[in-house]
Amino acid sequence: MEGRKILFPQIRGMLHGGDYNPEQWLDRVDILEEDVRLMKRAHINCVTLGVFSWAAYERTEGAYDVSWLKACMDRLYENGIYTILATPSGAKPAWLASAYPESLRVDAYGVRARHGGRHNHCCSSPAYREKVEGVVTRLAEEVGGHPGLLMWHISNEFGGECFCPLCVARFQSYLERKFEGDIEKLNHAWWTAFWSHSYSSFAQVEPPFSNGEYSIQGLNLEWRRFTTENTRDYLRFEIGLVNRLTPGKPVTTNFMELYEGLDYRVLADDLDVISWDCYPRFHNDEETFAETMAGVAFDHAVMRSMKKETPFLMMESAPGLVNWQEFNKLKRPGVHALASLQAVACGSDSVQYFQWRKSRGCMEQYHGAVVGHLGLPDARVFREVAALGASLEKLSAISGSLVRSQAALLFDWDTMWALADMQGLGRQTKQYAKTCEAAFRAFTSLGVDMDVIPQEGSFDGYQVIVAPMLYVLKPGVADRLKRFVERGGQLLATYVTGYVNEHLLCFLGGFPGGGLQELFGVISEEIDTLYPKDENTALFSDGTAAAVKDYAELLRVQGAEVLGVYGGDFYQGTAAVTVNAYGAGKAYYVGARISPEKMTDIYRRMLEDAGVPARTLPEGVERHVRSAEGKAYEFFLNMSEEEKEISGAFGKDLLTGREALGSLRLLPYGAAVLEQEIS
Amino acid sequence: MEGRKILFPQIRGMLHGGDYNPEQWLDRVDILEEDVRLMKRAHINCVTLGVFSWAAYERTEGAYDVSWLKACMDRLYENGIYTILATPSGAKPAWLASAYPESLRVDAYGVRARHGGRHNHCCSSPAYREKVEGVVTRLAEEVGGHPGLLMWHISNEFGGECFCPLCVARFQSYLERKFEGDIEKLNHAWWTAFWSHSYSSFAQVEPPFSNGEYSIQGLNLEWRRFTTENTRDYLRFEIGLVNRLTPGKPVTTNFMELYEGLDYRVLADDLDVISWDCYPRFHNDEETFAETMAGVAFDHAVMRSMKKETPFLMMESAPGLVNWQEFNKLKRPGVHALASLQAVACGSDSVQYFQWRKSRGCMEQYHGAVVGHLGLPDARVFREVAALGASLEKLSAISGSLVRSQAALLFDWDTMWALADMQGLGRQTKQYAKTCEAAFRAFTSLGVDMDVIPQEGSFDGYQVIVAPMLYVLKPGVADRLKRFVERGGQLLATYVTGYVNEHLLCFLGGFPGGGLQELFGVISEEIDTLYPKDENTALFSDGTAAAVKDYAELLRVQGAEVLGVYGGDFYQGTAAVTVNAYGAGKAYYVGARISPEKMTDIYRRMLEDAGVPARTLPEGVERHVRSAEGKAYEFFLNMSEEEKEISGAFGKDLLTGREALGSLRLLPYGAAVLEQEIS
Amino acid sequence: MEGRKILFPQIRGMLHGGDYNPEQWLDRVDILEEDVRLMKRAHINCVTLGVFSWAAYERTEGAYDVSWLKACMDRLYENGIYTILATPSGAKPAWLASAYPESLRVDAYGVRARHGGRHNHCCSSPAYREKVEGVVTRLAEEVGGHPGLLMWHISNEFGGECFCPLCVARFQSYLERKFEGDIEKLNHAWWTAFWSHSYSSFAQVEPPFSNGEYSIQGLNLEWRRFTTENTRDYLRFEIGLVNRLTPGKPVTTNFMELYEGLDYRVLADDLDVISWDCYPRFHNDEETFAETMAGVAFDHAVMRSMKKETPFLMMESAPGLVNWQEFNKLKRPGVHALASLQAVACGSDSVQYFQWRKSRGCMEQYHGAVVGHLGLPDARVFREVAALGASLEKLSAISGSLVRSQAALLFDWDTMWALADMQGLGRQTKQYAKTCEAAFRAFTSLGVDMDVIPQEGSFDGYQVIVAPMLYVLKPGVADRLKRFVERGGQLLATYVTGYVNEHLLCFLGGFPGGGLQELFGVISEEIDTLYPKDENTALFSDGTAAAVKDYAELLRVQGAEVLGVYGGDFYQGTAAVTVNAYGAGKAYYVGARISPEKMTDIYRRMLEDAGVPARTLPEGVERHVRSAEGKAYEFFLNMSEEEKEISGAFGKDLLTGREALGSLRLLPYGAAVLEQEIS
Repeated sequence: MEGRKILFPQIRGMLHGGDYNPEQWLDRVDILEEDVRLMKRAHINCVTLGVFSWAAYERTEGAYDVSWLKACMDRLYENGIYTILATPSGAKPAWLASAYPESLRVDAYGVRARHGGRHNHCCSSPAYREKVEGVVTRLAEEVGGHPGLLMWHISNEFGGECFCPLCVARFQSYLERKFEGDIEKLNHAWWTAFWSHSYSSFAQVEPPFSNGEYSIQGLNLEWRRFTTENTRDYLRFEIGLVNRLTPGKPVTTNFMELYEGLDYRVLADDLDVISWDCYPRFHNDEETFAETMAGVAFDHAVMRSMKKETPFLMMESAPGLVNWQEFNKLKRPGVHALASLQAVACGSDSVQYFQWRKSRGCMEQYHGAVVGHLGLPDARVFREVAALGASLEKLSAISGSLVRSQAALLFDWDTMWALADMQGLGRQTKQYAKTCEAAFRAFTSLGVDMDVIPQEGSFDGYQVIVAPMLYVLKPGVADRLKRFVERGGQLLATYVTGYVNEHLLCFLGGFPGGGLQELFGVISEEIDTLYPKDENTALFSDGTAAAVKDYAELLRVQGAEVLGVYGGDFYQGTAAVTVNAYGAGKAYYVGARISPEKMTDIYRRMLEDAGVPARTLPEGVERHVRSAEGKAYEFFLNMSEEEKEISGAFGKDLLTGREALGSLRLLPYGAAVLEQEIS
Repeated sequence: MEGRKILFPQIRGMLHGGDYNPEQWLDRVDILEEDVRLMKRAHINCVTLGVFSWAAYERTEGAYDVSWLKACMDRLYENGIYTILATPSGAKPAWLASAYPESLRVDAYGVRARHGGRHNHCCSSPAYREKVEGVVTRLAEEVGGHPGLLMWHISNEFGGECFCPLCVARFQSYLERKFEGDIEKLNHAWWTAFWSHSYSSFAQVEPPFSNGEYSIQGLNLEWRRFTTENTRDYLRFEIGLVNRLTPGKPVTTNFMELYEGLDYRVLADDLDVISWDCYPRFHNDEETFAETMAGVAFDHAVMRSMKKETPFLMMESAPGLVNWQEFNKLKRPGVHALASLQAVACGSDSVQYFQWRKSRGCMEQYHGAVVGHLGLPDARVFREVAALGASLEKLSAISGSLVRSQAALLFDWDTMWALADMQGLGRQTKQYAKTCEAAFRAFTSLGVDMDVIPQEGSFDGYQVIVAPMLYVLKPGVADRLKRFVERGGQLLATYVTGYVNEHLLCFLGGFPGGGLQELFGVISEEIDTLYPKDENTALFSDGTAAAVKDYAELLRVQGAEVLGVYGGDFYQGTAAVTVNAYGAGKAYYVGARISPEKMTDIYRRMLEDAGVPARTLPEGVERHVRSAEGKAYEFFLNMSEEEKEISGAFGKDLLTGREALGSLRLLPYGAAVLEQEIS
Repeated sequence: MEGRKILFPQIRGMLHGGDYNPEQWLDRVDILEEDVRLMKRAHINCVTLGVFSWAAYERTEGAYDVSWLKACMDRLYENGIYTILATPSGAKPAWLASAYPESLRVDAYGVRARHGGRHNHCCSSPAYREKVEGVVTRLAEEVGGHPGLLMWHISNEFGGECFCPLCVARFQSYLERKFEGDIEKLNHAWWTAFWSHSYSSFAQVEPPFSNGEYSIQGLNLEWRRFTTENTRDYLRFEIGLVNRLTPGKPVTTNFMELYEGLDYRVLADDLDVISWDCYPRFHNDEETFAETMAGVAFDHAVMRSMKKETPFLMMESAPGLVNWQEFNKLKRPGVHALASLQAVACGSDSVQYFQWRKSRGCMEQYHGAVVGHLGLPDARVFREVAALGASLEKLSAISGSLVRSQAALLFDWDTMWALADMQGLGRQTKQYAKTCEAAFRAFTSLGVDMDVIPQEGSFDGYQVIVAPMLYVLKPGVADRLKRFVERGGQLLATYVTGYVNEHLLCFLGGFPGGGLQELFGVISEEIDTLYPKDENTALFSDGTAAAVKDYAELLRVQGAEVLGVYGGDFYQGTAAVTVNAYGAGKAYYVGARISPEKMTDIYRRMLEDAGVPARTLPEGVERHVRSAEGKAYEFFLNMSEEEKEISGAFGKDLLTGREALGSLRLLPYGAAVLEQEIS
């Protein structure tokens, strides 16, 4: 049985806190004091300081004043509240933009931005780094040794790209390194002979400016990879700085779901702790609440899987509501606790908020906060936060335990980028991330926790792997998948698998390429892209049928067993779904986008063959399990507006102290956390 | 009994005229002569000259030729037709843009426009002002003393904004004055500590460039206020010029509905007469004709209320059709007269057109005109215009009389801007102007004329005030509203009232802020923003129910009487609509967006309590009343395609000469104007 | 009986080939050799080389290498395959953009493009022309005399516009020539007195920059005309070059449907052969397959009619699918043959493809090709192409024969541009091209081939002319239409006819102008633009009724016979459709947009009166006829998914060798080509 990974020994149990902005209230001592009183009442044990405080530290260049921060950390620490301290580089002061315009980004039209917004400095700018070094050094000098300092929070929500001359030059160097100084290697990899776009030197290669080169998919992909690399370079600069100034202090930076701009997995390597900001569109009118929450579980799993051996943190979430969605609806009573417990169930060791107190002005003055403009602790939102704080204390024992999955979803950032940019199929229907999320949801509905892993990651320890639409197939992956199946693994791939290599060159000899045809026993000769009003069916040997939408590959079966055939159109009767016995395992190929219900059947069969028990859960109920040192913590979360009855539920509910003896009743939006002994 | 305000003693009765562009036909003497013949046939008594004539006055720099204008004014005057003379600054000649590029505007991306279009000069440009001064001086010298000159029409449809360096510098000066040279006052007012956006000097403050600072709501609002101020500065320059050149001549400029770019009320102060250009989307397929026209009545009321003690002018309207809407449908027979009489009913002392004769080319060659390309007086449009001209002569006695309202709608330009820019609620459903218009329509349906006034304006003389969504609450207004209710006034406010002060800083201590909680006896703790498919209900003590859409505030009742409660959702049973007795009056608070029918019920109750008689009118019939010197002029306008029977109608119909003896029958699109003696 | 026009004596029969890009595979000799083997198997007799090969010819400036091309042409010629050789100017190498930035275009915002994409050189750039001359000269030197060289393919898919200073100066010179150096002629023609936009010199006239002058319709139109002229100037430069280098070799360039950017008819004069690229949205979900294909027939007719005395070429079409549409669906089995035969039926002497072999990377790696990534000749697409190749050989006798139409549709590029830019009517419902296409479809449904001709073209030889929405009426056309009717022609015009002259100035005295009122016996006094939900009807003397949508003109009948009147609205009972006997013929005026069924009735009546036999065809079946030297080739094409029975079918089916004896059965997507003797 695996051990326990305690992130912060200082805090026994879960972190409960959020972004706190005292710099907005320095003229209101009464409010700053009231804050601490209310935090204690809300069971807050940590806050995040300094995310947007640069201008408060350094009102004009070099004129530092960190005293207010120190006073604040003192006051908090005296009251048992720890500080996560952000480096302030997420937003720069106006004087900096004025004095160092080169720190502002250049957009895809080649136009340099003006001062404003946030998260918009050029990662390549030496001037910016120098100014950051100045202020962070001062912070470390003043509070780096503070006993209340828990962790560094590097900058904030990294994102975006820059087309300035410095970045362009770095991009060209990056390419020169990648293609070993040989422009013909680049020409071949990007197939530039097409449309006569061959380069004769690296200096000719421009990033994909909006009024420039849009037609080379390989270039577009490398630009995205470079943007991640250049962001990592900057991240490393800041991490190096704080490591040098405060050796041993852990670092994190806050991610945002499947943010399109950066491959988070590349950045994750340099972090001690993964954390992310979680803002679902609760109670929207396009899907059920349970569907919304299943999507959130997917996001949690993405984050968790970047560092499987350690809990992650939910660094931000909104008490009450957010203010930047199209419709900013209130979270219904109970949902705050439920969504917070879901984070914990999925592996978070924290529930943190943006923000502690609503600001009086600017962009987020209506973004949910623990303390609103009303300012009273009897407000509904405050009461819910405080109650959740009390509940989290009951779950202290869970901290440091881990979710241990036997099933994995292959999700590939490069494929996400490449498919979005790929010319072909249906512009609106490719939907790579949604397709992956749908597979994840199916496993969640079967009560099975699933990791979300990169194709380059290890497949060890998994019994079941699902790889939807794995368009980009990287070197060695086909062989590793074969070994996975050979040793007994259950693998499933779909239409649009293995079309291109890591440079986005098509495999010759048919799809799936790179050796996968042998594994799946099929060749995809053509793919039919359906118009939205088109529909086909797949018919299965057990007499069931499933709807086919959007995509249907025409398969040449080369040894696989046919499980389902098309029910209509000119390829009626040809294979739609196959399975190929390979070594001790099985490789499924699903040639068409068939309905989720049928996919769930196939997943259930795979789990059975893999010996991983699937559960029958009431609709809308999620189950997740964390474990450590002989204990399992089984979460049941009722993501519906009706009461639900769970069977097969045993153990003490840590939230109520009541023992479940096989059956459990959950109120609407209710939750239970059953502690069990395991061997 | 109040007196009469005659705008132009030279013209007995209503103005009937329109934009006339002889400069397009200087080579066609036959047409110029035909114009005068046809004008007389159409009962035209004034025209607007020179709106787009600069290039005709000054073909190259300094080479003036105003002789054609003088000849034209002579010819018209000899035939009894007066001239409203425009300054030609609404569109500049090509040579001017070539020679003085600084007169062209800079857009929100910092790019200077090229020559083209119109209404696009920089208000700050000294060169532009110098050239305007040159041509206007010449005009005044030549025709300033002409007996046919009725009024100056300053420029044309002011609008737009400029981001050039001159304007940016003026903006910074404006801010420096406003914040008394103290950048920290600005920082506090705009809450710039948020996102680290504090400024250390006024020189750092840039306007909200599209690629710059978008995140400070206070900045965005001040930029809009500045744009109005800078436009006023320009307007004053032109007014000062004509006042100096032709002392005593009245001035106007033509407005455009609730134009988003400028706070017209600020400009109104400097004008002698309010005038506006009225272009409804007649007969569209989204609303009934009566709904369209009720919206026009609102626009007329906005204009009228800017100078309540004087009639306004409908400076432009389209004979036949316009050509720039998405679908340019013909006005049905009778609608021209009906819509023109509505203007008069709402307080206009004119019916004027754009344009007299269709141009042969360019943007508006198909815009409706009195004389079309066919050119014959037996054309339908010409015949309708001529008939209306004859009708207007029958209404001469009405000129100078006024609409005198006992009810007022608070409409706040700053709130319109601030809510549109506010981050929160539902992006598409805020709809401030539409919400105000809906309240106005309800009063119109009750036969009650309503003024549309700013919150800074006087509340004297009103018995009923409705203030929908008064998001921005300015200093002193809460006290003035209290005094209004105290002395017996009936006041109604809704959700989203009093959230922020004049800098857009949230009031602390809950909404509505600034002291209004005491007046209404409620605190709004939260606001729920509904998705479009969501719906709730409000249930009233009288057993009625009303649908709730979009917004629902959760109220803490602090002394108010609860009139209605929510019918569903987690706040079921809590207060939705309240009333608070305060002094001799009552203050209603409507916490949710409830259906117009129910709102009308509440308004009816308010009118009853205020002793203002509401009427029961047939659906689609509007009633408006003007009065002066012991006479009332009661208009009944049938905005429907069916005949309508009006009861309680007395007096002589000025259009037909027939006496109404209690009942009145209106044909489809028909109208009556009953003259009555009043005490 | 007319003769036969053989385009290429070297190739007996139809061309069958496509774009071939060996430069992408120069390191794969195996693939290059396999290509030739597969081409022969697919009955390919020509390929198009070099469209995007510039970078392969000239990797760095002046370093030419054309040897691979020569080797390729040799290999192909030895195997009986001819070469159409493109000049490579359709896409420039990166070094060229680097060294000669002035060869890059400037966009409508005045911003010069960066390197990328294709078809984006400035036509005015001397540097670009010089570089093109260099590479084309080298090509001609090396392979200009090659026996396999069939024709020059000038550049590729000309299009786009450039706002660089060179182009602006050329535009000003163009205007100066057009208006004979007199700026006042321009001012009058463009009616610039409107909005004070008169120019005082040609140097002040800028093209319609996006942030400049948008308000002069005459300017906008001249800019489009100039763009065509400047493209022709460039085209002539290239044609002059190859004519000088390889005298006698024919030239073409490939067009794209009704491409909005260029008036193809102006370019057509300089070409020896018309060719175009045909990419329908097969099997979309908005229309029936037959409707899609009727639209393609229209496009073929547009191309054919540019050079009626010679066959055209379908230079590109997609085997299988394309990859750049919103949904890239597979062509169903049989459709490849059917669509290819339609091209031949409409006058093409070729079936050519983009592309022979799919590229491995970049924008079009999934665009259909004869050989896909699978690379096997037993693939469905390859088999269909090979079978079609065999069929084309059976149709060799048809080559050089022509479609000879007695009916013509007037389609005017200037009207397409002017109506799109015109301010008025309904923004989305003008739909000029679709309205013309609908008329063409109606004739196709009657089995009558129709030419698509310009208003400036000769009307000789036609019995029936349909001129929908002929908004722009050019000098002399009214007289020529009168002579056409006088001598017995049947003419039909509709609403929005003859509103403006060639400068877009409205005709005075009512529409249709320019003398057409006399021909049609009607004047259009007003036009009512309906909202989408509006509908009216037209009632005919024979008791039939037709729906009216979008547009309804109010007509004054001046001598015409009224065929139909409006059924509703305020113009109920007034004329909607009229006919006027004029000389020996008739002139119909259709004042409203009435349903296609009724229009077809009217067309049938016109054909009857003209003695042109209409056919009754099963729904979804097209009929086209080519003829030469006493032979007629009658095509029946089943554009539906059901079997169809054709009556009145006689002659030998060249595809099957079977004789039709009055009746013919067509399979779904089936075709027959009946050879008949004619006198």
